[in-house]
Amino acid sequence: MSQTKRQLHLNLFIMSTGHHEASWRHPDASPHMATSIEYYQKLAQTAERGKMDSIFLAEKYRLPKSIQHRVIPQMEAFTLLSAIAAVTKRIGLTATASTTYNEPYHIARKFASLDHISGGRAGWNIVTSTGDATARNFSREEHMDHRARYDRGREFVEVVKRLWDSWQEDSLVIDKESGIYADLGKIQAADFKGEHFSVRGALNIPRSPQTYPVLVQAGSSEDGKEFAAELAEVVFTVQHTLEDAIAFYADVKNRARKYGRSAEQIKILPGFIPYVGDTEAEARDKERELNELSVSAYGIQCLSDTLQKDMSKYPLDGPVPLDELPSVHEIKGQQARFQLYVDLARRENLTIRELIIRTAGGRGHFTFAGTPVQIADVLEKWFRSGAADGFNLMPPLLPVGLDDFVTKVIPELQNRGIYRTEYEGRTLREHLGVDVESLHQKV
Amino acid sequence: MSQTKRQLHLNLFIMSTGHHEASWRHPDASPHMATSIEYYQKLAQTAERGKMDSIFLAEKYRLPKSIQHRVIPQMEAFTLLSAIAAVTKRIGLTATASTTYNEPYHIARKFASLDHISGGRAGWNIVTSTGDATARNFSREEHMDHRARYDRGREFVEVVKRLWDSWQEDSLVIDKESGIYADLGKIQAADFKGEHFSVRGALNIPRSPQTYPVLVQAGSSEDGKEFAAELAEVVFTVQHTLEDAIAFYADVKNRARKYGRSAEQIKILPGFIPYVGDTEAEARDKERELNELSVSAYGIQCLSDTLQKDMSKYPLDGPVPLDELPSVHEIKGQQARFQLYVDLARRENLTIRELIIRTAGGRGHFTFAGTPVQIADVLEKWFRSGAADGFNLMPPLLPVGLDDFVTKVIPELQNRGIYRTEYEGRTLREHLGVDVESLHQKV
Repeated sequence: MSQTKRQLHLNLFIMSTGHHEASWRHPDASPHMATSIEYYQKLAQTAERGKMDSIFLAEKYRLPKSIQHRVIPQMEAFTLLSAIAAVTKRIGLTATASTTYNEPYHIARKFASLDHISGGRAGWNIVTSTGDATARNFSREEHMDHRARYDRGREFVEVVKRLWDSWQEDSLVIDKESGIYADLGKIQAADFKGEHFSVRGALNIPRSPQTYPVLVQAGSSEDGKEFAAELAEVVFTVQHTLEDAIAFYADVKNRARKYGRSAEQIKILPGFIPYVGDTEAEARDKERELNELSVSAYGIQCLSDTLQKDMSKYPLDGPVPLDELPSVHEIKGQQARFQLYVDLARRENLTIRELIIRTAGGRGHFTFAGTPVQIADVLEKWFRSGAADGFNLMPPLLPVGLDDFVTKVIPELQNRGIYRTEYEGRTLREHLGVDVESLHQKV
Repeated sequence: MSQTKRQLHLNLFIMSTGHHEASWRHPDASPHMATSIEYYQKLAQTAERGKMDSIFLAEKYRLPKSIQHRVIPQMEAFTLLSAIAAVTKRIGLTATASTTYNEPYHIARKFASLDHISGGRAGWNIVTSTGDATARNFSREEHMDHRARYDRGREFVEVVKRLWDSWQEDSLVIDKESGIYADLGKIQAADFKGEHFSVRGALNIPRSPQTYPVLVQAGSSEDGKEFAAELAEVVFTVQHTLEDAIAFYADVKNRARKYGRSAEQIKILPGFIPYVGDTEAEARDKERELNELSVSAYGIQCLSDTLQKDMSKYPLDGPVPLDELPSVHEIKGQQARFQLYVDLARRENLTIRELIIRTAGGRGHFTFAGTPVQIADVLEKWFRSGAADGFNLMPPLLPVGLDDFVTKVIPELQNRGIYRTEYEGRTLREHLGVDVESLHQKV
């Protein structure tokens, strides 16, 4: 029986030992497992027991110095997700891949392959990467500027779509008798010539179960929002307050309509960092325990990276030097995060130390400590207020934070009838209710 | 107890429904399974039951028109091998990756990740790709010439080695107490600036079990042999006769010595296409049956591709027009294969039809039909005559050709004491007896 009631979507954002920067220092953390496939397979299986839509991994093409004080996401996304696909059946698998440092032909193949291997569970978090340090790993001197990256990104997505479309559903004839394997008339070259790419095509992998992986986007800058509205089916976003989230939600859905898209075809998932306790006090204790494990030298370094200004030169308990920061347009990379930090510091008049603590738990994402009922209340409120179609779950400490959420919060959401008790579909598109035809129509 | 006796190595070269171009038309073939992960997982598990060193997959970044008449290798190598890693324990996993159309930073990450996921079973078949059709999928007009490709390839390998070496074995401190995760003093940037690449490094994945995947090479041109002698630990090669194989074997091992390498550290594995029958007649019937399934239009097309001359303009039963072919130096791509075909046609004075049939079963690789004892005799003879350290097994029809080999030929090799009855090591390097230190010493 098909559910008609609007359902909340949950994506698990997997980050080594958890999203709190100090999570690896916690007694329950297993930082030695950061390169162990079994560790990630188990997390995915737990999320699948929780009937979540998908798991997702960030990916960077550089090693930050901050590895000194924390576990940096490791392992390459496609190999990791493919090994996870082999031990799961339903959960979606979303890989991050950058349009700035990849070739469309390779990316189209990888997603087609992952989609075949997983039976239609692939998702693509489209990023444009950040920082000159990445550029220098790819024979370039500096990172492309914000606008140019998005232009290239848009073209990149167009090319890979053409490649995924190069095979029709009935291109494979496989007639042993006549000796015809494929119908060349039903395989179309991409024949793309643009400003950034020229790709003849066709793809050398037949059409995969979903045709396109689910397209995911997380940029929250102006360029990022336009990109998401035009192309994305899932949007990850950082939202601190219900009001801001409602405004963002309306903004992106309106922009999507401008591109001729239905608002239902784009799902907005704010990041959410839960501390789950049997009592509110226990939940708060869990949060405090992790915050106390933060290394202050590390916090200063991260804040300096985000604000692109050396914060170690200012007193830790003095105000954030807002007047001495670069302007947002000078920021290479995550402009939206920069703006978020600046707004937070200004609004709450924070010291440097306070800003570090406020962002340590998840880089500015919405954090909430409470009982399962309190957490479900918050999620339901956001969901019903037009602030979210679901959440990008970012447990501060893994695997225990995920276990707690799955065993305690999810049954509460299910009792309220806003979250599935069983998977109804097989593909990630079916879980999310987004269809590839709607992406085609708009072109 | 460690074996000291020299052992024969076997690599399974997996090719969709088999290496015979018409294999997919055979009643026992399952061409619908070419994008099914279960199909490949089962093949790998069978090879693992046969205690083979590794499985290997070719990979191309373009779709040839010949897909009309045959199953072209499909699925992307890393996603495929990673999903296979998840259901196997010991067998090596060798992926093909081109140095012409990739970035070293990505390739270094992928292999490090696959090596972690598989517990040290990764191998890298280093290729430089072929043909302008590939170039046109990567925003280039034409393929780089032979020499330039190998120059770039050499530099590429140097960069990825530096990246794999950027982490020492004890770079990870993981001291929860002090909050030190990694020792920055023990992570070294690649700091590479060459003609083709400039890569700052370091890698963002800690040192993997094998440090480097086993390096494999298959070029048999002059440039290819030098490249192999300098860098490869396993060489796949096309050899028709015992004499040629002995000469090639000695040639590559001598060249390796020139680079200060031990001859034992480079394993030569000629391709071998077995038709296994309980009687010799049955084996020959199997071969004839497949040859009769060949589509002649397809054979002409493939031959035209290899010879880079349109063969459809010549009479099928007339001689191969040797005088009208381009010279080997004009061939873009597989020069060694071109030379092999020309030599074969000249030596045996073949018609076009005859040359097509001779190469249909495996693109010129050594083919042998016989009983398990006869096959073991041939393999043993090559192995003991200094023609081979083992073989790159290319079953003409899959999975049955592999099943036959594993259940009938392998026990025969084991009885002769030249092939393992159980894995002794865990990593592909241990299976092959090649060590990463010897690669380091020579630099």
